[in-house]
Amino acid sequence: MQRYFVENKNIYNNLAIIDSNDFHHIKNVMRMNISDKLEICDYSENLYLAEIIKFNKDNVEVKLVEKLNSNTELNTNVTIALGLTKQAKIEEVVKRITELGATGFFAVELTYSNVRLKNFKLNYSRLDKIVKEASEQSKRTKILKINESLSFKNFLDFSKSFDILVFAYEGLKDNNEQLLNDLIKTFENKNVLVLVGPEGGFTNDEVEILKQNKFIPVGLGRRILRLETAPLYILSAVSYELEL
Amino acid sequence: MQRYFVENKNIYNNLAIIDSNDFHHIKNVMRMNISDKLEICDYSENLYLAEIIKFNKDNVEVKLVEKLNSNTELNTNVTIALGLTKQAKIEEVVKRITELGATGFFAVELTYSNVRLKNFKLNYSRLDKIVKEASEQSKRTKILKINESLSFKNFLDFSKSFDILVFAYEGLKDNNEQLLNDLIKTFENKNVLVLVGPEGGFTNDEVEILKQNKFIPVGLGRRILRLETAPLYILSAVSYELEL
Repeated sequence: MQRYFVENKNIYNNLAIIDSNDFHHIKNVMRMNISDKLEICDYSENLYLAEIIKFNKDNVEVKLVEKLNSNTELNTNVTIALGLTKQAKIEEVVKRITELGATGFFAVELTYSNVRLKNFKLNYSRLDKIVKEASEQSKRTKILKINESLSFKNFLDFSKSFDILVFAYEGLKDNNEQLLNDLIKTFENKNVLVLVGPEGGFTNDEVEILKQNKFIPVGLGRRILRLETAPLYILSAVSYELEL
Repeated sequence: MQRYFVENKNIYNNLAIIDSNDFHHIKNVMRMNISDKLEICDYSENLYLAEIIKFNKDNVEVKLVEKLNSNTELNTNVTIALGLTKQAKIEEVVKRITELGATGFFAVELTYSNVRLKNFKLNYSRLDKIVKEASEQSKRTKILKINESLSFKNFLDFSKSFDILVFAYEGLKDNNEQLLNDLIKTFENKNVLVLVGPEGGFTNDEVEILKQNKFIPVGLGRRILRLETAPLYILSAVSYELEL
């Protein structure tokens, strides 16, 4: 069944108003009619079975028929921090990590980032749209939160609010100080921050500073993964370890 | 260090000739000079340290200085079969599964495939180029093999040459008949075929036929994954289970 996220302000007791893109999708793409059923998820992780009761000029009214139980979320909160890079690559990562159950995302400017914060601004409204669509399609009930991009210094400050800090470090190869397998087992009900470096990797200085700030380096297998792939590896591993 | 795959026919004892795109890359992108070092990998999984000895008009000659040991391959052969879909999606999957260590790839026409074999031909030379570049960047020594797309019937015949047959099936949810965790532990040194369905999923008939043909259904966590994401989940899980 089709699922739509609806802003809490558009939900009144047992009635919801769906407008803009979703209205268009329901009316013109799905060609739904009065009495057709759909799923409504609010931004507080509540999921409802709903029924279309009225089409207006700019929106459609649905009745919330029944509250549904859903269990599609990871039992850990994983935020991915990615070395700042171009919009297209970030969109690709955001789409996939949403499907794979991540809780949050932001970009971090590192020495080898190929774009710089001072002359580059991500299109956040596009990212939010990608998150919403990927959440609906993957049947999630939680909306991944996109935060503002940060400098490395601000990132280190921000990281102190997390329980477990990890960074993907290819320099380790076969001598992992701590195996990801053991680490993921400790993720349950924790707020985890995973940093994946930019195309050029981390500088030695950055690696040292990360370690001093309690970031645990982890290897991701024997091959060199691109920055678009490494976050997916980690989230797949989290699901594999904690959900299967 | 930069790595280039060179066709076996261009390697003569301790000399290799690099032409076409790689020649351009070495000369104009990397701007390398005589005596510069690079890595050469042939198509039989041999890796060499090499040194540039001469630039010609259309190629560059390198001397193989030393055979190198490398251990970047999974200790299992995983071939991904994907529900036939558009070229762009297949390119995305091929690029990522190459990085993640897959051995082979081909597309299968299924009932819900959004393109049909009879009026659609993949651009295989583009796929081979993507594989080569992703192999070089991820530091692999083995070249993923792209096979011709198959009908479902031919796919079932072809599957008989594999040791372990798996298909990603979201219908299972929390009642997995066999957990992927247990299954992957049996992958070592085996030829494994993993089928991921098209956008619309499998028909009930297809699921029944797959089961009759010894395909094991596996769930991939609680969310619905897109066809571009499911193969990456499985290969990440294979690396996580067997390499870390």
